[in-house]
Amino acid sequence: MASQKNDKRNSRLDQKGSGRRNFLKGTAAAAATGGVIMHELSHATPAAALEGAAPERAGFDPNRRRVATDLLGKSWWPSKWGAEDQAGASNHMGPVKTMEAVSRITTGTVYPIGRTYEAGMPLFGSRVFGMRIPGAPTGGVFGRNKIIWNDEFLATEIGQVGTQFDGLGHIGVEAGSAGDQNERRFYNGVPLSDMAGPYGLQKLGMEFVKPLFTPGVLIDVKGAQGGMLEGGTEITVADLEAALENQGLSGDAITPGDAVVIRTGWADLWMEDNARYNSGEPGIGVEAAEWLAEKDVCLVGADCWGIEVVPNPDADLAFPAHQILLTKHGIFLHENLLLDALADAGVWQFAYIFAPLPIKGATGSPGAPIAVA
Amino acid sequence: MASQKNDKRNSRLDQKGSGRRNFLKGTAAAAATGGVIMHELSHATPAAALEGAAPERAGFDPNRRRVATDLLGKSWWPSKWGAEDQAGASNHMGPVKTMEAVSRITTGTVYPIGRTYEAGMPLFGSRVFGMRIPGAPTGGVFGRNKIIWNDEFLATEIGQVGTQFDGLGHIGVEAGSAGDQNERRFYNGVPLSDMAGPYGLQKLGMEFVKPLFTPGVLIDVKGAQGGMLEGGTEITVADLEAALENQGLSGDAITPGDAVVIRTGWADLWMEDNARYNSGEPGIGVEAAEWLAEKDVCLVGADCWGIEVVPNPDADLAFPAHQILLTKHGIFLHENLLLDALADAGVWQFAYIFAPLPIKGATGSPGAPIAVA
Amino acid sequence: MASQKNDKRNSRLDQKGSGRRNFLKGTAAAAATGGVIMHELSHATPAAALEGAAPERAGFDPNRRRVATDLLGKSWWPSKWGAEDQAGASNHMGPVKTMEAVSRITTGTVYPIGRTYEAGMPLFGSRVFGMRIPGAPTGGVFGRNKIIWNDEFLATEIGQVGTQFDGLGHIGVEAGSAGDQNERRFYNGVPLSDMAGPYGLQKLGMEFVKPLFTPGVLIDVKGAQGGMLEGGTEITVADLEAALENQGLSGDAITPGDAVVIRTGWADLWMEDNARYNSGEPGIGVEAAEWLAEKDVCLVGADCWGIEVVPNPDADLAFPAHQILLTKHGIFLHENLLLDALADAGVWQFAYIFAPLPIKGATGSPGAPIAVA
Amino acid sequence: MASQKNDKRNSRLDQKGSGRRNFLKGTAAAAATGGVIMHELSHATPAAALEGAAPERAGFDPNRRRVATDLLGKSWWPSKWGAEDQAGASNHMGPVKTMEAVSRITTGTVYPIGRTYEAGMPLFGSRVFGMRIPGAPTGGVFGRNKIIWNDEFLATEIGQVGTQFDGLGHIGVEAGSAGDQNERRFYNGVPLSDMAGPYGLQKLGMEFVKPLFTPGVLIDVKGAQGGMLEGGTEITVADLEAALENQGLSGDAITPGDAVVIRTGWADLWMEDNARYNSGEPGIGVEAAEWLAEKDVCLVGADCWGIEVVPNPDADLAFPAHQILLTKHGIFLHENLLLDALADAGVWQFAYIFAPLPIKGATGSPGAPIAVA
Repeated sequence: MASQKNDKRNSRLDQKGSGRRNFLKGTAAAAATGGVIMHELSHATPAAALEGAAPERAGFDPNRRRVATDLLGKSWWPSKWGAEDQAGASNHMGPVKTMEAVSRITTGTVYPIGRTYEAGMPLFGSRVFGMRIPGAPTGGVFGRNKIIWNDEFLATEIGQVGTQFDGLGHIGVEAGSAGDQNERRFYNGVPLSDMAGPYGLQKLGMEFVKPLFTPGVLIDVKGAQGGMLEGGTEITVADLEAALENQGLSGDAITPGDAVVIRTGWADLWMEDNARYNSGEPGIGVEAAEWLAEKDVCLVGADCWGIEVVPNPDADLAFPAHQILLTKHGIFLHENLLLDALADAGVWQFAYIFAPLPIKGATGSPGAPIAVA
Repeated sequence: MASQKNDKRNSRLDQKGSGRRNFLKGTAAAAATGGVIMHELSHATPAAALEGAAPERAGFDPNRRRVATDLLGKSWWPSKWGAEDQAGASNHMGPVKTMEAVSRITTGTVYPIGRTYEAGMPLFGSRVFGMRIPGAPTGGVFGRNKIIWNDEFLATEIGQVGTQFDGLGHIGVEAGSAGDQNERRFYNGVPLSDMAGPYGLQKLGMEFVKPLFTPGVLIDVKGAQGGMLEGGTEITVADLEAALENQGLSGDAITPGDAVVIRTGWADLWMEDNARYNSGEPGIGVEAAEWLAEKDVCLVGADCWGIEVVPNPDADLAFPAHQILLTKHGIFLHENLLLDALADAGVWQFAYIFAPLPIKGATGSPGAPIAVA
Repeated sequence: MASQKNDKRNSRLDQKGSGRRNFLKGTAAAAATGGVIMHELSHATPAAALEGAAPERAGFDPNRRRVATDLLGKSWWPSKWGAEDQAGASNHMGPVKTMEAVSRITTGTVYPIGRTYEAGMPLFGSRVFGMRIPGAPTGGVFGRNKIIWNDEFLATEIGQVGTQFDGLGHIGVEAGSAGDQNERRFYNGVPLSDMAGPYGLQKLGMEFVKPLFTPGVLIDVKGAQGGMLEGGTEITVADLEAALENQGLSGDAITPGDAVVIRTGWADLWMEDNARYNSGEPGIGVEAAEWLAEKDVCLVGADCWGIEVVPNPDADLAFPAHQILLTKHGIFLHENLLLDALADAGVWQFAYIFAPLPIKGATGSPGAPIAVA
Repeated sequence: MASQKNDKRNSRLDQKGSGRRNFLKGTAAAAATGGVIMHELSHATPAAALEGAAPERAGFDPNRRRVATDLLGKSWWPSKWGAEDQAGASNHMGPVKTMEAVSRITTGTVYPIGRTYEAGMPLFGSRVFGMRIPGAPTGGVFGRNKIIWNDEFLATEIGQVGTQFDGLGHIGVEAGSAGDQNERRFYNGVPLSDMAGPYGLQKLGMEFVKPLFTPGVLIDVKGAQGGMLEGGTEITVADLEAALENQGLSGDAITPGDAVVIRTGWADLWMEDNARYNSGEPGIGVEAAEWLAEKDVCLVGADCWGIEVVPNPDADLAFPAHQILLTKHGIFLHENLLLDALADAGVWQFAYIFAPLPIKGATGSPGAPIAVA
């Protein structure tokens, strides 16, 4: 009966417009989906979660854990920024990067590259976006000047809806033996038990991130490939280099501390076909994530919801690029960007300016990033 | 008995740490305070609301309405930006202002001038700030890479707590006869009935505001006067000019489209004495607001919660500078800034960069403004 | 362009699983639907809102307003409970009704007739249901006894989701000329301007409603008609009487102050087909509402979301039974009940026990009503 | 510097009206307080948390853990209701108890014994209560009948504010070695890892609790002792028996499955002196909790915020009665009741009726319990 109940719940989720489950069936990556389902699976034994994975995959042998650990390597902390660091790749920021970025500003054109936040936007998993205007008006009438005013009230995963900047407290790894809750680690090896708090993270919150004012590079993979990439398409290093070449650039255009944003075309589905938008995405995989990490960038952004390929071609991996970039290297992610105007104008290099909301203990930030050329 | 009840409620508010009522007793400006009280007074007849006002004040004569109207003048709409405009003074933005601002950047130093958002910050009226981390972790464990993640959930007046940018839908005026709900107007004369919506403003929402990238000028009144101004101290045009002179500048340093931020010192009380912080503030009055409006700036900010003197020296006025700047001229306000680092460094002119959150139908925006020099 | 925008928004709503719009096309009742759409239409002129109504209907002639007024009659206030009353039909409650109800309890069987509140339940319009568990655990570890605890955080229209009890501040009427915001009235003629408040209604809030402990009567129309009624099916007085007769009862079984609950079968769609559940419903119409009002009951409940037929057979009427019962007579509504166990057991008469949450200034109440036999 | 920060934060909490910290200084029970502080302490080592405890107390020796375990005993699960049970002491409910309760109803008088929920009520720790009315009105104008409506939106720890019913998922114990997150247990031994979920508890949620309709007994300790008990006063078994005797009853009046509610008088401080209300409370201790557990009641309620003495006379214990009653025995707690009307009327025995909100995965329930005599 419990399983009937779950079936019912799942079908409800499907009604909500998410076909996201389909690509996950029978694979370990089934776990890599949103909300209620995610949670249900989180309590499954690993074997159960992976049930049905194709035998030719590394599968269920005792080496799996080793492989998992190998994704991040043996000693991914302390970070290059020091054992106490909580600012990650925003430590690149400083006068030098600022002035490099300023040198990219030649015409004074400001391109907003963030989305409008609104009730109909696609949301990941079980997140909600509730906005209310209390009263109409909220305050007044007061004084001889008869003032009135309106406020707005929001109830939402503010840093993890719409255009979102993932902070260092967002993504971690269960680093110990299966099910051991005592060995959960985030950036710089911070244990979850040191960070967790019901009213905000105690460490790695957004208040530690420095404002980003740095050179930005757009890699227009959509443009290079002639149209929107399909969901589940991995963008390789070769794809990135080809796109750069198509723009008259090379990988050398990316220097340490830069912000790199990738156009996949997936943005075309935003509020046009939310179900498909959420059902997967094109994006970078492990290879490109490591290449970008080697480039020592401060941020990787994209015009899709998770910057990386979903489902991952290795069906046993769930969001591995998140772990490589955020958890291991402290490199921030910027999701649900809108890069069309930049691409249409052929603006490949610019100043990338984004100052995250310093919400104490938050895992991410909303905001309105701008590219200035 | 009803009045007993009210007394009890008021005493509760006082317990919450707000002495804000004290300065309001027996004056029209009693209305100019937060939350529940505000609402209760909003239904009082004007006479009742003003009960006890000192007779030597302009007071209660039939001309009062005329005076109220006179604050904004007879024809404050259509706006100079056109009858359909919803972007207000952000229309100043464009390549010219951007490049002017860029020319202010010489060292590449980025000054964050916004506050951290956190549970203990002073809140106006009945606003709340609730932040929760769902689960710990929120998601996972998934995949062979054993990913986990955290989200944050906020329930709050997001655009009207902490460092806040007031949008055009925030402040209006009851322009008709007393109690007439059909004549409530906002910027560009937009009737409240056209704007109001339970799930977001239908007009004048934050999504219409252009990102600000413009020259900024700091006017350090605290510095000029040798310390924090007291609550209820009106900053006059002479004060502003004296402070500019003290900085080696004059009013000519302010050009159309610039952002002007004023340091009063009131910020010293933030989270040190929230009750006093909320109990009033120093700031500009009607005179300086009109001077700044003539300067045609795009934004007026300050290191206090409402940028203007509270209580107003004319006890019958409630937040008149808000109406002059926002409602009449479409000039944005930026409240609860932190300007100490700028002043300490003697940075009086800089690039002011702030891209408001484009939350559809919101009245204001949180964010992390930066001054770059 | 504005209309394109609307089209896009509407299609989004449809994606959310609501086919509710379909039955509304081209009729005045098009207005009678949820959330964003509702609001958009609320600003349409009456003519526009009614565009396309069939000419054979009363239509657009000047008499329409008269008809509207006629629904509630000329002088529907003061209420029978006095001009200052805020408790409506809960004034029936008292020792007499309690003891009548007690006399219905013979076996001691308690039937819960409310729904479980959960994320997948159908929601009306733009309402949301967000629940989060802060941390895991929320508190602890403390003391030698090493206590830990969990809380839950909800963000939702708490009184208007799931099983919901509509209070007197929920439903009103624009009683003046078209668009006149100064003549909006609720139960007992209370003007909206006296009630409205951003942080809770100032009058007619749930705190005034007395706990209901009264005889209850189930009218099993589904049982009498052999299955679930279709959406848009009006339940007439004849239908109610036939169902009562089928149960061996008559209309005389209903005495003043009783609670009447009606089984339509629409409950079968709950979380099985939310889109259809929200797309309309069977229920009483104007005739049966007036009959129940004459019976002087304290409450009308049903196993559907709005207790009344939607769309109304008179396509120009939007939720008229709500106005007749709540606004005019102060009779409460109880929606989204689950009456199957009662019907299966043939329990037609029982003690109806429900004590609404006394949330100050709320429009409705969640809760777990019970029928005891 | 970290400690300075904490000092500042603490002083902020004090500003909010909580002197709660004072009684906790230098004791293990320092942990037994709200919100941010609670969390900070939760990461302290036990030694640090207990620092300063008086040497004459059992203190810091290795036997402490044994004592902790001893509070709940060695084998407190499976529960008497079965290893899979999630309903706890509500399993007592059934026709027998219902009819026993009905026999207590003689006059038909209904006493509401819950509080009104409102913004000024005292809140524990960092919980918030935010209520907003979206728009005014929220919906309409629609139809020829020109309907309008209001909703309310709440953002709050709904089951843990105001009158609150603690469910089985609320209170647990860290049962393993210090800091071991893998051995956290709740009622029936359910591991936290099986229950935890970001969007609701996966086990022991409120949806499993049966409606309570059972004989109730009021123990008026305030009445017996001639006035409000002081905070920190432990109510002993002798006190309970004396109060019962004073009422002409004895402990035999309590039979298995009954609801017992205790009047301490602490309710007098509600919204009169919230700071003092939150600063501690009189209530039962370990002895009386065990006595009530032996009586096999279904519920223990009181007119204070936590039903038990705070601080506990054994300063190393934090809310031990919660663990004894809820965690070990599955006996529910009902907090912040208002028992004055019952006591004034000398109604010592009655039907206790409360059907908790079946919010799926919630830890507690708001509601309006009634006592019927």
